[in-house]
Amino acid sequence: MKKTRFEAFSDGVLAIIITIMVLEIKVPHGERFSDLKGLIPIFLSYALSFIYIGIYWNNHHHMVSTVNKVTGGILWANLHLLFWLSLIPFATGWIGENHFAAAPMALYGAVLLMAGVAYYILQSLIIKNEGRDSLLAKAIGKDLKGKISPFLYATAIAVSWLNSIVSGIIYVIAALIWLIPDKRIESATRQNKEAGDD
Amino acid sequence: MKKTRFEAFSDGVLAIIITIMVLEIKVPHGERFSDLKGLIPIFLSYALSFIYIGIYWNNHHHMVSTVNKVTGGILWANLHLLFWLSLIPFATGWIGENHFAAAPMALYGAVLLMAGVAYYILQSLIIKNEGRDSLLAKAIGKDLKGKISPFLYATAIAVSWLNSIVSGIIYVIAALIWLIPDKRIESATRQNKEAGDD
Amino acid sequence: MKKTRFEAFSDGVLAIIITIMVLEIKVPHGERFSDLKGLIPIFLSYALSFIYIGIYWNNHHHMVSTVNKVTGGILWANLHLLFWLSLIPFATGWIGENHFAAAPMALYGAVLLMAGVAYYILQSLIIKNEGRDSLLAKAIGKDLKGKISPFLYATAIAVSWLNSIVSGIIYVIAALIWLIPDKRIESATRQNKEAGDD
Amino acid sequence: MKKTRFEAFSDGVLAIIITIMVLEIKVPHGERFSDLKGLIPIFLSYALSFIYIGIYWNNHHHMVSTVNKVTGGILWANLHLLFWLSLIPFATGWIGENHFAAAPMALYGAVLLMAGVAYYILQSLIIKNEGRDSLLAKAIGKDLKGKISPFLYATAIAVSWLNSIVSGIIYVIAALIWLIPDKRIESATRQNKEAGDD
Repeated sequence: MKKTRFEAFSDGVLAIIITIMVLEIKVPHGERFSDLKGLIPIFLSYALSFIYIGIYWNNHHHMVSTVNKVTGGILWANLHLLFWLSLIPFATGWIGENHFAAAPMALYGAVLLMAGVAYYILQSLIIKNEGRDSLLAKAIGKDLKGKISPFLYATAIAVSWLNSIVSGIIYVIAALIWLIPDKRIESATRQNKEAGDD
Repeated sequence: MKKTRFEAFSDGVLAIIITIMVLEIKVPHGERFSDLKGLIPIFLSYALSFIYIGIYWNNHHHMVSTVNKVTGGILWANLHLLFWLSLIPFATGWIGENHFAAAPMALYGAVLLMAGVAYYILQSLIIKNEGRDSLLAKAIGKDLKGKISPFLYATAIAVSWLNSIVSGIIYVIAALIWLIPDKRIESATRQNKEAGDD
Repeated sequence: MKKTRFEAFSDGVLAIIITIMVLEIKVPHGERFSDLKGLIPIFLSYALSFIYIGIYWNNHHHMVSTVNKVTGGILWANLHLLFWLSLIPFATGWIGENHFAAAPMALYGAVLLMAGVAYYILQSLIIKNEGRDSLLAKAIGKDLKGKISPFLYATAIAVSWLNSIVSGIIYVIAALIWLIPDKRIESATRQNKEAGDD
Repeated sequence: MKKTRFEAFSDGVLAIIITIMVLEIKVPHGERFSDLKGLIPIFLSYALSFIYIGIYWNNHHHMVSTVNKVTGGILWANLHLLFWLSLIPFATGWIGENHFAAAPMALYGAVLLMAGVAYYILQSLIIKNEGRDSLLAKAIGKDLKGKISPFLYATAIAVSWLNSIVSGIIYVIAALIWLIPDKRIESATRQNKEAGDD
């Protein structure tokens, strides 16, 4: 199975997910800036989700670049990941429309948690296929970010019932942690290339 | 005609079909979990259709990988397949909104049946072009899955008038059968490669 | 300028145009087949436009495959073509919702006419750049289809005020003419390849 | 990191942005040409934004073609650019629905200004990575267009409170300036290739 189409399909789905979220920001009927006021929470939740999808695209890109062979299992694990990510626009719209209320904030965290689990399954499957000495296995190392994230999401879900603003701050922090691109794989790939060039 | 653009266009259409379905899950106005209750059938029908489009993408991917030459006939057979698949979001929305009522369930089966027929036409055309000794012809073999599926869809359509839940279960079973990736083509490709390497 | 991205962007836009049209087929609230009755004209106009976009994609694909160098002019002529094609979903929705009334039918023809003109400009520009002895120039030949189509669209626009059904039949005929893939370019490309192989 | 996927994702997002704008042109209920009258400002704003996204795609394409290595920083600068561009459909819908009123016109300019800033950041980052003697640095030269544009947008924003039509004319002029494809990079690439061929 060629990796090109696997990547092209994932890129297409992620590009659509990141863009259709903007359709939730409905054009207001009024013509004054004050008419945009009600859209502020929708805009903020859009920006946060845009960053999350960006992070997933970035990490997905790095991870798949280490794959040599796309098996049926990897393909379905990838679709499983895309399924949860495809629910982010819905969760984003719900928190935006309800001004960060408790239940929407908890659902948002649940979708992120499920996407995180799906990503972990995909990653594990790739490492299993490519071997423990593979590029990805080395690059991931202890996978600190991957271990902290679900813990942060779970905390945010629990906290949302007490104070949904704190919950929102945790989602922002969890995003910022990942915003730093995965230098581990980037540098591992470079070392590998240099080794291969010798 | 280059295969790259043929694949890219199909990937694009399938990626959009699989993603716009999520727009049917309309954000509820309420802010409580109980407000999501009405969305459960819509969510379930979305998940089922997501799997079906995933299956089609997967099989399409495998099948096209065996094609050496894209003719005008293959191109239009492919557009014919994409046409029926593009109606899945509509059928999905209808069964979701009407809580798996008889007519929507029958229509859903009819769309799946037509997509199955379109897939069969495309497959036959490719085999005709590539020859009976081609990779695809060997890989397909007796094509058991392809023969059972339309029978299952037809049964589900008939059953939907008696009990639409049973009809739904049949659709789930028909999906599960295909969920297993087409190892036949995968292994045939591998053997071919090894033979070619010799 | 690389042709890959030029093709990828065109494929993306065409894939989206062909798919978002389906969003016009709104899910009915009722759960009986009779509730679908009002959707029949929308469905028919969708099927016709699907074929038209399919034709454009097919011809675009063939034409661009003969291009060696994408200039700024070609790029903008292509965007001009995509602009008119992007209005097809709107025109399709309007004829569907008004059961093939006169004005919508005329507008549909006008959009097709403008798209045809834009295609002709793009084609002329490519031939001008590639030279009169180029592959495309030879393949097009007398360009009978290209000359008949605008005449058919203009006739259908005029006729729509008298009898919009006749107008619709002309659109179907104009599509059927193009449905036959452009064997001219296909065979010219093959001959060229064989000549190159010698 | 491979440039292919970076380009494919950007192409996907830009193709979706340019196409979903057309969804703002809602199908009217009436069946006469006079029913389209209210859509004229929406159509005009759509055409303008289509050109703007076309310009961005064109320049993005030229710029990225000079990149040898996609770093994490470039990737996020690119997502930052796509974020602002993704707000163009919203701003377009707002000006269209309010017949070029003051606040919508100012917001439109603000989004264009932010996209311009994001483009400048991306460009600077690429030049920084590729070196001051790089192809892009040479091609950009004094970057007159890039320097005039933000000034024009800022003027249009200020003017929109006095006369929003003048503001609209400035946006059209700012687009026309860019409509001329970036021959600088095109010619620089060609020279480079010829030099490399020697």
